[in-house]
Amino acid sequence: MAISITLEQLCNGIDPIRVSGSTTVPLGNIASLDNAVPGDLAFLGNRKYDSQVKDCNASAILVPVDYSESEPKENQAYVFVENPSYTLALICHQIELSLFPRPAAGIHPSAVVDPSASVDPSASVGPFCYVGAKSKIAKDCVLEAGVTIGASVTIGEGTRLESGVRVNAYSVVGKHCHFLPNAVIGADGFGYAPVNGGIEKIPQIGNVVIGDDVDVGACSCIDRARFASTRVGRGTKIDNLVQVGHNCTIGEFCFLCGQVGLAGSTEIGNYVTLAGQAGTAGHIKIHDKATIGPQCGVSGSIEAGQTVLGSPALPAALTMRVMACQKKLPDLFKRVGALEKLLAGK
Amino acid sequence: MAISITLEQLCNGIDPIRVSGSTTVPLGNIASLDNAVPGDLAFLGNRKYDSQVKDCNASAILVPVDYSESEPKENQAYVFVENPSYTLALICHQIELSLFPRPAAGIHPSAVVDPSASVDPSASVGPFCYVGAKSKIAKDCVLEAGVTIGASVTIGEGTRLESGVRVNAYSVVGKHCHFLPNAVIGADGFGYAPVNGGIEKIPQIGNVVIGDDVDVGACSCIDRARFASTRVGRGTKIDNLVQVGHNCTIGEFCFLCGQVGLAGSTEIGNYVTLAGQAGTAGHIKIHDKATIGPQCGVSGSIEAGQTVLGSPALPAALTMRVMACQKKLPDLFKRVGALEKLLAGK
Amino acid sequence: MAISITLEQLCNGIDPIRVSGSTTVPLGNIASLDNAVPGDLAFLGNRKYDSQVKDCNASAILVPVDYSESEPKENQAYVFVENPSYTLALICHQIELSLFPRPAAGIHPSAVVDPSASVDPSASVGPFCYVGAKSKIAKDCVLEAGVTIGASVTIGEGTRLESGVRVNAYSVVGKHCHFLPNAVIGADGFGYAPVNGGIEKIPQIGNVVIGDDVDVGACSCIDRARFASTRVGRGTKIDNLVQVGHNCTIGEFCFLCGQVGLAGSTEIGNYVTLAGQAGTAGHIKIHDKATIGPQCGVSGSIEAGQTVLGSPALPAALTMRVMACQKKLPDLFKRVGALEKLLAGK
Repeated sequence: MAISITLEQLCNGIDPIRVSGSTTVPLGNIASLDNAVPGDLAFLGNRKYDSQVKDCNASAILVPVDYSESEPKENQAYVFVENPSYTLALICHQIELSLFPRPAAGIHPSAVVDPSASVDPSASVGPFCYVGAKSKIAKDCVLEAGVTIGASVTIGEGTRLESGVRVNAYSVVGKHCHFLPNAVIGADGFGYAPVNGGIEKIPQIGNVVIGDDVDVGACSCIDRARFASTRVGRGTKIDNLVQVGHNCTIGEFCFLCGQVGLAGSTEIGNYVTLAGQAGTAGHIKIHDKATIGPQCGVSGSIEAGQTVLGSPALPAALTMRVMACQKKLPDLFKRVGALEKLLAGK
Repeated sequence: MAISITLEQLCNGIDPIRVSGSTTVPLGNIASLDNAVPGDLAFLGNRKYDSQVKDCNASAILVPVDYSESEPKENQAYVFVENPSYTLALICHQIELSLFPRPAAGIHPSAVVDPSASVDPSASVGPFCYVGAKSKIAKDCVLEAGVTIGASVTIGEGTRLESGVRVNAYSVVGKHCHFLPNAVIGADGFGYAPVNGGIEKIPQIGNVVIGDDVDVGACSCIDRARFASTRVGRGTKIDNLVQVGHNCTIGEFCFLCGQVGLAGSTEIGNYVTLAGQAGTAGHIKIHDKATIGPQCGVSGSIEAGQTVLGSPALPAALTMRVMACQKKLPDLFKRVGALEKLLAGK
Repeated sequence: MAISITLEQLCNGIDPIRVSGSTTVPLGNIASLDNAVPGDLAFLGNRKYDSQVKDCNASAILVPVDYSESEPKENQAYVFVENPSYTLALICHQIELSLFPRPAAGIHPSAVVDPSASVDPSASVGPFCYVGAKSKIAKDCVLEAGVTIGASVTIGEGTRLESGVRVNAYSVVGKHCHFLPNAVIGADGFGYAPVNGGIEKIPQIGNVVIGDDVDVGACSCIDRARFASTRVGRGTKIDNLVQVGHNCTIGEFCFLCGQVGLAGSTEIGNYVTLAGQAGTAGHIKIHDKATIGPQCGVSGSIEAGQTVLGSPALPAALTMRVMACQKKLPDLFKRVGALEKLLAGK
């Protein structure tokens, strides 16, 4: 990584309440209190680690205003701020902008843009991108190398599509979305009908509609609807290798973790979390603020606020009790055998 | 979506038995009876919804010939056909063709086609496609933007490869197949041998052979064989994010749903269904017409026609009974404890 | 497949101890003893198949020096070697080199390489590749068609990136690695913080560091770290559709089979195997030489050398006993019911 800033540059960006001590070592990395070496910036994010500050070797440490357990060593600075975790996030965001600068506006000469498509002059369309007929790329969008946009697609303002993303025809993508490499939006839903010993494809003539501030992970797939639309609500975050079947409706501010799979027509409320590798049967509803545990198999609807675990998914407390019992099953069989013997002898 | 057809245009395409009523509203969408609004086409696909037709607000409704419970409202038409679901499928197929027209024949100037490859003049090779040495692209094939075809590949007549599909060297793909974006066919099988504390790769010198009418989903992967061929039979449909290991043999007219994983050398008969996220151990056989439930872990061979559930997979009826028991396990432990106490007291 | 070699060409490459019999049939395929037909090369890799050699129809058969149960038929040769399996691997490797020749050195005219990037003259950069600013492609690397390399990436000597691989900014890839099509290295980790009813992204300013001799499967994803690095150790092999979350550390010579998912900050030792579809919770450690079974859900740390099965993962022997009990649960409920009845009657 290529960060290198002075203590002064750091403080300029974050406006600390006060600084104690000083350092001439350029800051090039962020590390935890117990791992930090000179050249690192560390932070006291949780007060249970107060005692680690004293022995920390970072060149600069973000500490809360009321921290007073130790004084900086030689060539070390304590930077006092209201909320070290929040300040750290701000610093990281600045570093992110410097490490991953927005590519320049304009259409790369190698890109192919259909004459009927419209690309805002402030947008960046990278090498080997293809933009289909009648599609609209709004201002400040970024299409990295090798992105494919089908016909009649709308990409909202400030959305960033990383390398190899495919957005199929008629998809509507909101503002400030971020799709990671090789994600696939709007491919055919998986719909077939067995006919006379063969299989006929059911045409998938709907589309995908994605709200603002939605992130989609690498190699994740969101299928277009049979009719109408597969929908992903505002602010929802989808991790890598996730499958969203046709006609699903996902609400706002949900988390779909890695390798989650939603069968067709799953309906998901707002503020729902699906942990890694969880799967849902089709045509069910997961209500607001439900939490679906890792590797869960959800075969029926889930009430608002409920946490479920296991496959098949059951209320978490029940699953925990069942799992505790399962470990003792071999013993239970012995106990029942002993009882039977005892009674047989009577 | 950009559909807009008149009632007359609709009827021209489907040749109804008779039409009752009429509408001047252009038809722009397909909706269910209870959700339809003016401008929609609705359909009575299941006779249990007969009573919904009367209050339906669609501008046109497909109904079976013997439907007689109500009369069309003003500016509404009932279109009487033999089988509304089948007619709807025909209509959708027409809409699909108009919404997703076949790209023009010819090789896009940006594509790179090896001089020793042959591309039929009726085929369409999109921007940024690469076709390797000695490969053959048959007539009416469509390669969308950014498709890569390795050396000595054969793609059969009328097959459509969507954006970012990768077909590695020596793969043989049948006629009228359809692969969704970023699918990967013919990559190296995962074969290694531990040697002297390290790991040696076992060369994978086979290929992949795919029959006619096979669909492969977005980001799905079918690995090439160690020797000989990994095979997918005619008419089989594979959903998104599916893994087919090297040397697998899949029969005809199977369904592999989203995120299914087949370990190497799995053998699958005809008309087999694997539900979402199911996995198989290698070197087993799943016989004709078996059904593998969602998230199943199949560790042994499965008989023809059998339905299995659970991980490890067991006959469905047994798994259902076991699952019902599991919920009551904490209670069973209490019951056994009570019996023990009772007997200890004797 | 397009192999065709004479018996003499075969023997030149492997230097057999002796040859008995001869054949004029060109060898075009490798097959097992029981499936082989004329034109095939078969091999006696396991002595329990000694009896199959006699009836094998291959034109040439690799046998161990001390094999003596039968004599070659007409137009058939027995090729005696020290270790038929090892010799076969050598032969396959030669065939692999001839079937999948290294593309020519040089940058394809359609590729876009940033002027500040450096590409060794011996490297091959295929059509539609993009190499970002300050990236370094070492000697003998191969980038197949449509590979994207972000800024400040290092790709070590002899590494091969197949079609559609994406390597994001600041990634460091070792020597002699092999990444299959559409793999994604260094995309943003999945890190968010709920803030005021919305969700804020946590900047991911770390990178991915991959050791030498690492293979990554098709459509697999290795996310970059929040700070510091996500690490994959030397010699580790990752299959298709695998998810490695941000800040994971994977040791040397591990196997991650198809569709495995590692949540963020999972720590994996050396010589660890994760079977297909297994998943891990974040912030746990799997110690050296542990084996994680298929579809396992690992929620806590695993000791060195331990084998675990099930979800939640438990020691394999315990899981096997529990699974055996589960099948008999319906019967156990009956037995306990019978005991209760018996005692109630007393």
